[in-house]
Amino acid sequence: MSVGIAVVGCGYWGPNLVRNFWESEETELRWVCDLVPDRLVNIRKRYPAVQLTNRLEEVLADPKVDGICIATPSHTHFALAKQVLEADRHVLVEKPLCDSSEKVQQLIELAEQRQKVLMVDHTFLYNPAVRAIREVLDSGRLGKLLYFDSTRVNLGLFQRDVNVLWDLAVHDLAIMDYLIHDRKPVAISATGIAHVSGQPENMAYLTCFYEDNLVAHIHANWLAPVKLRRTLLSGEKQMIVYDDLEPSERIKVYDKGITVSDEKELRKLLISYRSGDCWCPKVPPGEALENEVLHFAECIRTGSKALSDGMAGLRVVKMIEAGSLSIQRRGAPVELDLP
Amino acid sequence: MSVGIAVVGCGYWGPNLVRNFWESEETELRWVCDLVPDRLVNIRKRYPAVQLTNRLEEVLADPKVDGICIATPSHTHFALAKQVLEADRHVLVEKPLCDSSEKVQQLIELAEQRQKVLMVDHTFLYNPAVRAIREVLDSGRLGKLLYFDSTRVNLGLFQRDVNVLWDLAVHDLAIMDYLIHDRKPVAISATGIAHVSGQPENMAYLTCFYEDNLVAHIHANWLAPVKLRRTLLSGEKQMIVYDDLEPSERIKVYDKGITVSDEKELRKLLISYRSGDCWCPKVPPGEALENEVLHFAECIRTGSKALSDGMAGLRVVKMIEAGSLSIQRRGAPVELDLP
Amino acid sequence: MSVGIAVVGCGYWGPNLVRNFWESEETELRWVCDLVPDRLVNIRKRYPAVQLTNRLEEVLADPKVDGICIATPSHTHFALAKQVLEADRHVLVEKPLCDSSEKVQQLIELAEQRQKVLMVDHTFLYNPAVRAIREVLDSGRLGKLLYFDSTRVNLGLFQRDVNVLWDLAVHDLAIMDYLIHDRKPVAISATGIAHVSGQPENMAYLTCFYEDNLVAHIHANWLAPVKLRRTLLSGEKQMIVYDDLEPSERIKVYDKGITVSDEKELRKLLISYRSGDCWCPKVPPGEALENEVLHFAECIRTGSKALSDGMAGLRVVKMIEAGSLSIQRRGAPVELDLP
Amino acid sequence: MSVGIAVVGCGYWGPNLVRNFWESEETELRWVCDLVPDRLVNIRKRYPAVQLTNRLEEVLADPKVDGICIATPSHTHFALAKQVLEADRHVLVEKPLCDSSEKVQQLIELAEQRQKVLMVDHTFLYNPAVRAIREVLDSGRLGKLLYFDSTRVNLGLFQRDVNVLWDLAVHDLAIMDYLIHDRKPVAISATGIAHVSGQPENMAYLTCFYEDNLVAHIHANWLAPVKLRRTLLSGEKQMIVYDDLEPSERIKVYDKGITVSDEKELRKLLISYRSGDCWCPKVPPGEALENEVLHFAECIRTGSKALSDGMAGLRVVKMIEAGSLSIQRRGAPVELDLP
Repeated sequence: MSVGIAVVGCGYWGPNLVRNFWESEETELRWVCDLVPDRLVNIRKRYPAVQLTNRLEEVLADPKVDGICIATPSHTHFALAKQVLEADRHVLVEKPLCDSSEKVQQLIELAEQRQKVLMVDHTFLYNPAVRAIREVLDSGRLGKLLYFDSTRVNLGLFQRDVNVLWDLAVHDLAIMDYLIHDRKPVAISATGIAHVSGQPENMAYLTCFYEDNLVAHIHANWLAPVKLRRTLLSGEKQMIVYDDLEPSERIKVYDKGITVSDEKELRKLLISYRSGDCWCPKVPPGEALENEVLHFAECIRTGSKALSDGMAGLRVVKMIEAGSLSIQRRGAPVELDLP
Repeated sequence: MSVGIAVVGCGYWGPNLVRNFWESEETELRWVCDLVPDRLVNIRKRYPAVQLTNRLEEVLADPKVDGICIATPSHTHFALAKQVLEADRHVLVEKPLCDSSEKVQQLIELAEQRQKVLMVDHTFLYNPAVRAIREVLDSGRLGKLLYFDSTRVNLGLFQRDVNVLWDLAVHDLAIMDYLIHDRKPVAISATGIAHVSGQPENMAYLTCFYEDNLVAHIHANWLAPVKLRRTLLSGEKQMIVYDDLEPSERIKVYDKGITVSDEKELRKLLISYRSGDCWCPKVPPGEALENEVLHFAECIRTGSKALSDGMAGLRVVKMIEAGSLSIQRRGAPVELDLP
Repeated sequence: MSVGIAVVGCGYWGPNLVRNFWESEETELRWVCDLVPDRLVNIRKRYPAVQLTNRLEEVLADPKVDGICIATPSHTHFALAKQVLEADRHVLVEKPLCDSSEKVQQLIELAEQRQKVLMVDHTFLYNPAVRAIREVLDSGRLGKLLYFDSTRVNLGLFQRDVNVLWDLAVHDLAIMDYLIHDRKPVAISATGIAHVSGQPENMAYLTCFYEDNLVAHIHANWLAPVKLRRTLLSGEKQMIVYDDLEPSERIKVYDKGITVSDEKELRKLLISYRSGDCWCPKVPPGEALENEVLHFAECIRTGSKALSDGMAGLRVVKMIEAGSLSIQRRGAPVELDLP
Repeated sequence: MSVGIAVVGCGYWGPNLVRNFWESEETELRWVCDLVPDRLVNIRKRYPAVQLTNRLEEVLADPKVDGICIATPSHTHFALAKQVLEADRHVLVEKPLCDSSEKVQQLIELAEQRQKVLMVDHTFLYNPAVRAIREVLDSGRLGKLLYFDSTRVNLGLFQRDVNVLWDLAVHDLAIMDYLIHDRKPVAISATGIAHVSGQPENMAYLTCFYEDNLVAHIHANWLAPVKLRRTLLSGEKQMIVYDDLEPSERIKVYDKGITVSDEKELRKLLISYRSGDCWCPKVPPGEALENEVLHFAECIRTGSKALSDGMAGLRVVKMIEAGSLSIQRRGAPVELDLP
């Protein structure tokens, strides 16, 4: 039996969710809700069978709606998700989950009380390439992880209410949180700049210090001439380059690295360098959003926690808050206190 | 009349200088000096006509030696350059000029007293691509510069006495100092990590804040699976991507950017996006070191200041010192006081 | 007033046409026709408002259908297009127009008698990059064209009824026919091989000789490990590289070439080499099929000839026939007699 | 004991041979011979210890010269190599071995009579990447080879006496001859064009038909805006892409292909497609010429046949002759009769 769905918000990202909920065998898209009439007209043209409204109340009045997907501006996420949970429906919220960690905390508690699914749209956790990287990491072949370095830049839309960390770096933080699940981040130093006066920062560099000599770095930028989506992950034994724009070999695993040996006699360290073959695991086909929509439906049916649950959303929002604060302090580190 | 030259130090970089001084029409390579006998054997095999020694004194005793090039480990630069200047010879010192700004200051004063050329081997200032970028910038076509972002990573030799800022970022800082000659850097925030216990940092991220809303960022890394040498420069009107590894189009100038207009009536900013043609200026052929060697000879002959003079070396060393201090403070900013 | 459309055939390519006819403001997609019930089920799911049938007669009985698009296997094109034209409707036929030039000739005559649009789906003629190249060529900046070289390879579906010339090279021949409109092809030499016994050739190399020292070459291959879509066009003054898979600079115009001068005194030719800047014209956004669908609608409304009309289809089919014959003769040239 | 060497010809390629013979531990470069005085001046500047002359006789008078390397224009190879062999010295001749297969045949016979090494400078046989490909092929992992496709284009020097097959395609033919050592080529079809009136063809396409459904194709071009050096090799099980300009992964082995199964019941072939991981074997460091020079020295010392012996030179020259003849016939096939 398929799960009844409504999508709230049809601006930039919403139509992708609409399409995937419409096409999935596991979900029945019953409603699309938006305040802008033109957007609903476009939905009607493509999906004449879907009901349209500009009132969330009307959606909540339909008992066949099991889960609601919120794809509105981030400052509205909290109020809408709260309303949905209080109406005893499951909710999937576009990233970032809320515009403050305090609000995320409230939603987590509410979802727990109501025994409902609270899921955040950390899309890349459902991307087959990121899944494949997680498998490589979990296999242990990289050895102990040394660093994570991600670049996500292009000439992108300047957001008015949030800085580039909330809009772009959120993806890398979510990927990082998913891939590095067994080490604890402890502090963040970030720098950034707002090139349009009075607007939020349009470019940012964020370093996240982990326990035990691991470091992560993210470069997020709305004002770059080229589109780059590249992540390096280096372990003690092997290293990964993940280029999401590469058409054929998106993931390359290099048998490269250094070996450190302690020469007792010589009382010095010897560092030797290894450079071997490279291996590019096949990335299974499939669209991230399709996988995500299936996962949401499954969580609703089985009552299980989402991979990108409220806690994942909380950790990411707390890191963005720390990063934004560090930017104000021109890089001075901000301690993290993650759950 | 050609200028008499000696090269001191024949380890990793010295042989490149030896080759260029040997091949240049403007210089006569008279001596190569090194403490390691095997290195001198290699020089003898290729350049039987060059005199060899392990004593700088012997070189300084040759009245036909006008200029001496120091290509030894950086902690020895100061003492050797001082000895050369005190013997009233011109000196070209491998980067970094010294391992502290205080020593650089002393060399600058000494060179001034002795009226001798003090030049630092900031090789990229003599690279035809960097020269071409400077021309593009000086033409004004980019508009006001907004940021400089440079990545210089590969699986490189771990240095024992200096961190990766002294070894790799020094190139980007020298390029940045050369290209952005009309704006003033005011503070640096940097983060980094040493993956080999007891050794200096092998990867670092450095943000340099300039006056008037300009920011520069450098990623330097000895422990990366791939070699990247890429610099982005964005102006208000156009943007540059410089990829030093690109065989054909090393410099791309994009007619891309944003236009900000103030809608008085609406009391809000309108940001519009432009995306036009791309233009790749031809980079003239020629090796950087060849140009540099010619420049050193010319400065000796004419008594003119080198493009990469002591002051350039001083500014770069001061920025590395500030960066290294900020790394110790996990990103807390360090003010710059550049001459 | 929008033009009434039916699409016949919903296998591999048909759904793309369906989507574009559905989304275009200029057309009203009234019918989709296919013999395979499952395909119609998929159409119903996405486009519930479109009427479905497995009988062309039913489509032709609808007076509001102005134009019919045939996207069935190529051996059925002739009979279906004939039926459509005889029912006095305009027709757009997937490439290749027919599986023989004789049949194409008949369709051309029939379309003329009935005063109907006969258009072939040479998609790349509506691709913004190919349009931009045509503009560069027509501007004269390349000088006299010297050669056209195109590579179109990937691991593609092996067709059972036609060789790779009919399936892949047809695109390059259509592009070539469009771009080189002022020179006349005179003969073709082609080689190829069928790696699956009893099946048509899955890879082919085709050289087309033009009058006046111009040559074109096409490599088409269904059995390649990587996807390549690259075309070189060299003129006497400048040269173009068109890489359809390149995300940002799809077209590069190089100010490169040779200059031949006749040294009377020396009684020999001097060839000098030029290498200057490179320029990448911005390719306007837009999907080829969207442009094509608009063009079909416009031709129906205005009665004008299509850019890819029956004659274009005829020239391309004749070249494929000559190429296929030459393949049988292991490269022996076959003269062309194009209209 | 090192082998005494002379190099005859110091134009474009000779200096590379000079450098490698000079630097090798196994050879003693005793003489460089050229008719152009300026070239000898350059040699003297870099290698003051080497004796210079413009008379081959002087070289042959030195009893310590064991082997002579001919790097002169190809029409002079035969006479010079003959003179060397008749003086009972070993000879290494730049590619192509001679400008006709008849002359090659004579040299082979002469070398046999005199029991001397006759080696041709098929450089790529000593290239570590080509060696690595040969190992992959010999391992059988590709399955039965289906095709070889090579592109070698750039803006290169127009030769006056020979067409582009003799100058560029010779490399690919030598590689092909080396890699495909267990299948027999039977005919060649080639097309080409001379864009400068009265000069030899500056671009050519060559198809080589092998026994048993294997085909090879080479595109050689002096008039291309970009430099391409890419070879595809497809087997029944796996496929190789070799890009000699790729800095890091020069060889990629794709676990891709088709599987053909014969469905007896259905009386039709089923073709299924495989697409798996990609593997990039590490290419050992080392310069081809360095390996080649060592091999020549070893053949001289041991009296063994060179890998690129006279017979290899003969096969390649016969293929070039067949290709050139086919070009005259606009692609009509020319049978091969290889030894």
